[in-house]
Amino acid sequence: MIKVGIVGGTGYTGVELLRLLAQHPEANVDVITSRSEAGQAVADMYPNLRGHYDLRFTEPDADRLAACDVVFFATPHGVAHSLAGEILDKGGRVIDLSADFRIRDPELWAKWYGQPHGAPELLKEAVYGLPEVNREKIKQARLIAAPGCYPTAVQLATIPLLEAGLVSADDIIADCKSGVSGAGRGASVGSLLCESSESMMAYAVAGHRHLPEIQQGLEEAAQSDVGLTFVPHLTPMIRGIHATVYTQLLDDAEVDLQTLFEKRYANEPFVDVMPAGSHPATRSVKGVNMCRISIHRPQNGKRVVVLSVIDNLVKGASGQAIQNMNLMFGLPEATGLNQVALMP
Amino acid sequence: MIKVGIVGGTGYTGVELLRLLAQHPEANVDVITSRSEAGQAVADMYPNLRGHYDLRFTEPDADRLAACDVVFFATPHGVAHSLAGEILDKGGRVIDLSADFRIRDPELWAKWYGQPHGAPELLKEAVYGLPEVNREKIKQARLIAAPGCYPTAVQLATIPLLEAGLVSADDIIADCKSGVSGAGRGASVGSLLCESSESMMAYAVAGHRHLPEIQQGLEEAAQSDVGLTFVPHLTPMIRGIHATVYTQLLDDAEVDLQTLFEKRYANEPFVDVMPAGSHPATRSVKGVNMCRISIHRPQNGKRVVVLSVIDNLVKGASGQAIQNMNLMFGLPEATGLNQVALMP
Amino acid sequence: MIKVGIVGGTGYTGVELLRLLAQHPEANVDVITSRSEAGQAVADMYPNLRGHYDLRFTEPDADRLAACDVVFFATPHGVAHSLAGEILDKGGRVIDLSADFRIRDPELWAKWYGQPHGAPELLKEAVYGLPEVNREKIKQARLIAAPGCYPTAVQLATIPLLEAGLVSADDIIADCKSGVSGAGRGASVGSLLCESSESMMAYAVAGHRHLPEIQQGLEEAAQSDVGLTFVPHLTPMIRGIHATVYTQLLDDAEVDLQTLFEKRYANEPFVDVMPAGSHPATRSVKGVNMCRISIHRPQNGKRVVVLSVIDNLVKGASGQAIQNMNLMFGLPEATGLNQVALMP
Amino acid sequence: MIKVGIVGGTGYTGVELLRLLAQHPEANVDVITSRSEAGQAVADMYPNLRGHYDLRFTEPDADRLAACDVVFFATPHGVAHSLAGEILDKGGRVIDLSADFRIRDPELWAKWYGQPHGAPELLKEAVYGLPEVNREKIKQARLIAAPGCYPTAVQLATIPLLEAGLVSADDIIADCKSGVSGAGRGASVGSLLCESSESMMAYAVAGHRHLPEIQQGLEEAAQSDVGLTFVPHLTPMIRGIHATVYTQLLDDAEVDLQTLFEKRYANEPFVDVMPAGSHPATRSVKGVNMCRISIHRPQNGKRVVVLSVIDNLVKGASGQAIQNMNLMFGLPEATGLNQVALMP
Repeated sequence: MIKVGIVGGTGYTGVELLRLLAQHPEANVDVITSRSEAGQAVADMYPNLRGHYDLRFTEPDADRLAACDVVFFATPHGVAHSLAGEILDKGGRVIDLSADFRIRDPELWAKWYGQPHGAPELLKEAVYGLPEVNREKIKQARLIAAPGCYPTAVQLATIPLLEAGLVSADDIIADCKSGVSGAGRGASVGSLLCESSESMMAYAVAGHRHLPEIQQGLEEAAQSDVGLTFVPHLTPMIRGIHATVYTQLLDDAEVDLQTLFEKRYANEPFVDVMPAGSHPATRSVKGVNMCRISIHRPQNGKRVVVLSVIDNLVKGASGQAIQNMNLMFGLPEATGLNQVALMP
Repeated sequence: MIKVGIVGGTGYTGVELLRLLAQHPEANVDVITSRSEAGQAVADMYPNLRGHYDLRFTEPDADRLAACDVVFFATPHGVAHSLAGEILDKGGRVIDLSADFRIRDPELWAKWYGQPHGAPELLKEAVYGLPEVNREKIKQARLIAAPGCYPTAVQLATIPLLEAGLVSADDIIADCKSGVSGAGRGASVGSLLCESSESMMAYAVAGHRHLPEIQQGLEEAAQSDVGLTFVPHLTPMIRGIHATVYTQLLDDAEVDLQTLFEKRYANEPFVDVMPAGSHPATRSVKGVNMCRISIHRPQNGKRVVVLSVIDNLVKGASGQAIQNMNLMFGLPEATGLNQVALMP
Repeated sequence: MIKVGIVGGTGYTGVELLRLLAQHPEANVDVITSRSEAGQAVADMYPNLRGHYDLRFTEPDADRLAACDVVFFATPHGVAHSLAGEILDKGGRVIDLSADFRIRDPELWAKWYGQPHGAPELLKEAVYGLPEVNREKIKQARLIAAPGCYPTAVQLATIPLLEAGLVSADDIIADCKSGVSGAGRGASVGSLLCESSESMMAYAVAGHRHLPEIQQGLEEAAQSDVGLTFVPHLTPMIRGIHATVYTQLLDDAEVDLQTLFEKRYANEPFVDVMPAGSHPATRSVKGVNMCRISIHRPQNGKRVVVLSVIDNLVKGASGQAIQNMNLMFGLPEATGLNQVALMP
Repeated sequence: MIKVGIVGGTGYTGVELLRLLAQHPEANVDVITSRSEAGQAVADMYPNLRGHYDLRFTEPDADRLAACDVVFFATPHGVAHSLAGEILDKGGRVIDLSADFRIRDPELWAKWYGQPHGAPELLKEAVYGLPEVNREKIKQARLIAAPGCYPTAVQLATIPLLEAGLVSADDIIADCKSGVSGAGRGASVGSLLCESSESMMAYAVAGHRHLPEIQQGLEEAAQSDVGLTFVPHLTPMIRGIHATVYTQLLDDAEVDLQTLFEKRYANEPFVDVMPAGSHPATRSVKGVNMCRISIHRPQNGKRVVVLSVIDNLVKGASGQAIQNMNLMFGLPEATGLNQVALMP
């Protein structure tokens, strides 16, 4: 059994780790930390966990955490920088669900996150935990930067086109729609039911922190610079991200896009290329570690429209983190991640 | 492996059976029937099942069904009457999720369901599948009448009080709130998002078909006649039932109600008596086979208020049906039913 | 034109006053105060008001407020106690939407609100602003205590029965379901979309602050003590209260309840007794100053079930406050309140 | 008083006409037709209209309709073709909310709507009822083709850019999100709460019927061909459309886009150009005849992103139709349309 530690387990990605790990046959949560809730039983805070956990939140302690086989960070950005290094030094392994190690350039990170990067020396070692791109590196990694939710949905929708060199890299549009859980469990007016239900709105059009992360991933796939317009929208639902990605075929492109995607993801357990003409709904992945994709070319023009849906808390966060853990520990990749989405 | 057949698998209880059975280690769905969808792949109709089932809907066929170890009926009322008998005659076993065998008196059934009972000869044999009451009988049964959703929530909230003779049996009020999935997947105007979201309303106050079923169960617990007022309400959410049950303590009652309930359900894997003072939320059981209960006595008066929540599609239907199957086949009762509720 | 002042206009009852007064032909908002938002334009905070108001929030100032013809308090409890007196002293009139003057007994108020009553000397003068009961007193009043949302829905559903002496006064149950806007615009975790949508739960079963207010009103109608069980539930929608009131007919009662209610409310512009057999939906009153009621007697037994729906922010708060204003200033009662509910 | 007739008043645009006309000081609904509901009181079908209408649905009759000053068609496509001509011949005026007269080319109409155009001779006379473009023509018109919901949102967001020749006309993307009321009141499985809430999905990516209508409008503004990619999404809410329009600035464009939009719409009562940097939410226009727009240029690149929100049933249908009526009858354009959006 893998001994798991979780730092900062009171938010939505934390409780989602607990939900998924409760059903994981090869892992056991030994430690879960929260400064604010230390002493409280996790099942008191999250009644859905009653009967599944006796665990209590504790103060974070590097030694206890390093004694785990792997430590997940489900913390706000900036927290993992120092503590992760300490754990690694003591021989632990870390999967960080925050943004702390996703951007390889510490200056770029500092610009978007408004503070200096706290552990630039770890960036070379950190592996970006998108298994569909970095599977082999993940298996060897000590430090995983688990991708953001928007970046997961957009990259999986776009990289087959860029890798194949079929579309213009300098003009990609990602129009994304996210459920409110993406905003976290913090008490903010904008996330109140009375403010966010029965309404749709864009936000952060001038620049969202996931933009440089997406761009970095797409540039790696394209092996060139990428021009990206990314517009996130707050959608009146709890879970789910729907990415609608618009790219332009290069002049001489003559290709069966459906086959391209099917081949690219043929062996991927958690990417489902839907039949041609499909429209994936976010509810089809609610609660499960899956990305469903469909590819369209309206009126047979040069515009390619790729639709991609994930559950932001699973394939966009905690499920993908566990997928990384499975790879790191030599388990079958889908261990503990084979649930069926709740429908309706 | 238990070979499972499902009759009428296109509705919400049908797809919920498929979702839960996909994760059941000891059962396998061999046949699923639907007259209207015969030939279609279940995963085309329900994309959440993609990758989990290769099955196609077929026309119902008694021989093929009887060749299964157990057949679930997820059909509208009236359908199971004839086909269930045929399957039993051929040596099969049946778990009926419809109302066809819940009411022991065929005249009463005919009155509430507006048609003659089609198989009165089977009523003696049919076991009402509420494991918390009939566990031993279920283990021996060939024909299970799985309880309705409201009846499950109300009975689990009320029977400890009636069995103990603590409350007046002639004046029980069950004010119940159900998500819209209780109305099924039929295309009706009243169940449209635009008609049922952002609104709350009572319905069928003059008399709902679950009333005689609840009454029968409560009378068995009370060993006396029961006076019941049952008011269901349509609640703007997909899943969940919240029962608020009002009873009156008998004059001389002096008892610790919290302890009473805890003892009554001490060994029940799927009834969770919450700590005193709790208010269970339906979301704490979303997608799982669990009933959470809390007991209140406002201002220490004689009124007892019991709050009870279930997922109408799981503990109120398909999960409970599988719990019955586990008992019938000698499996640990919780086999395949140990999921954690999705939160948020 | 009536010059209106509003104290504490940043919450939901404040913006609802602004919405309704924008369409009122005989009133004009001159002053709106908020300590935290002083200087901000109301239309910047509430974009739905763009084009309707040039007004900015100002610091509360008793002189400026007293110069208005009437001042609405849309403040948390405790705020109106001192400031209202000051305004009255300077010759102003006050309509308080908070709980500060609703309970006539200052000791009882102090017990439920956890602090001493700050203006007990004003309680004799304060008129409880339920026009269906106190219309004539309201016309003469200087200080109105506008009723709470639950109390409005429950009293309108119950007082015809109590006034007529038809039901047992010592055993009334009010099972109420409220939209989340009843919890206000404060940033609390429990009111987040991710916490309160797709779920139903009771709260404050041990005792909610509206209980003594309802009891006081019912006792006045009954001219006797009243035994009340009041259980509020948080319902996953923005607006609306649905009260389901259970009473017991006295032994010798033989009466046409439908006619009783129709006569009681025959001249009421804002109470709609629905046809017999109806089930009012909260959406039928969304955004409007209306209470719709239907009366049931299931299975012709002694239990009477009255269903009552209001919009908690309109007939349960701001609309009713304006109805009071109309009465106080001799305007036709429905002035500015004749909108049609949004459906769907 | 304008005597109004409504053909096909049982759907959502029909009841919305009734809601808005109930508050219109210069118009009165004389006739409302529905074959299926003839004889029924409109207030029985739509309880929000109780107290506002005594009207009953009648069978459609051309003479009675032609006796009205104006007839609104709130019918499925194809219905207005024949009946509108008859009414015009008898001297009536028609505002058609369906698609029957929106497309000027009858062949194009036939291609997208799958049936021959039934009244091509009326197309020359029909005026496309977008007041922000065709105000003067509307004033003189006998036959108005009221714009569709998506086309209204997209055109208002895009035409200032095209009229000014600032952006590339051959590559415009409109990513649109609509509430479920856009699908109408028909009983379809896809519009059930259990199917469409808590989920987001695109639909009709291969080609939606509003595409040629939008294209026609944009081409008129651009005075050139337009290349358009239009992707609609079904959003889990009742009302509202959010259009996110992506265009590309031409190389030499150097312009203040904010000022451009503010000038273009300076005198428009129902277009609100929000302050720079804003993100309009659909709830800010819920129930009102308003389009709110904001203009972004992320990272100061060449991509222009325009956000545009309307209520699909008001500015996208019934409100705009009444705006047309006001213009046709010489009334101030905002008569009866000055409500404030419900918030929250």
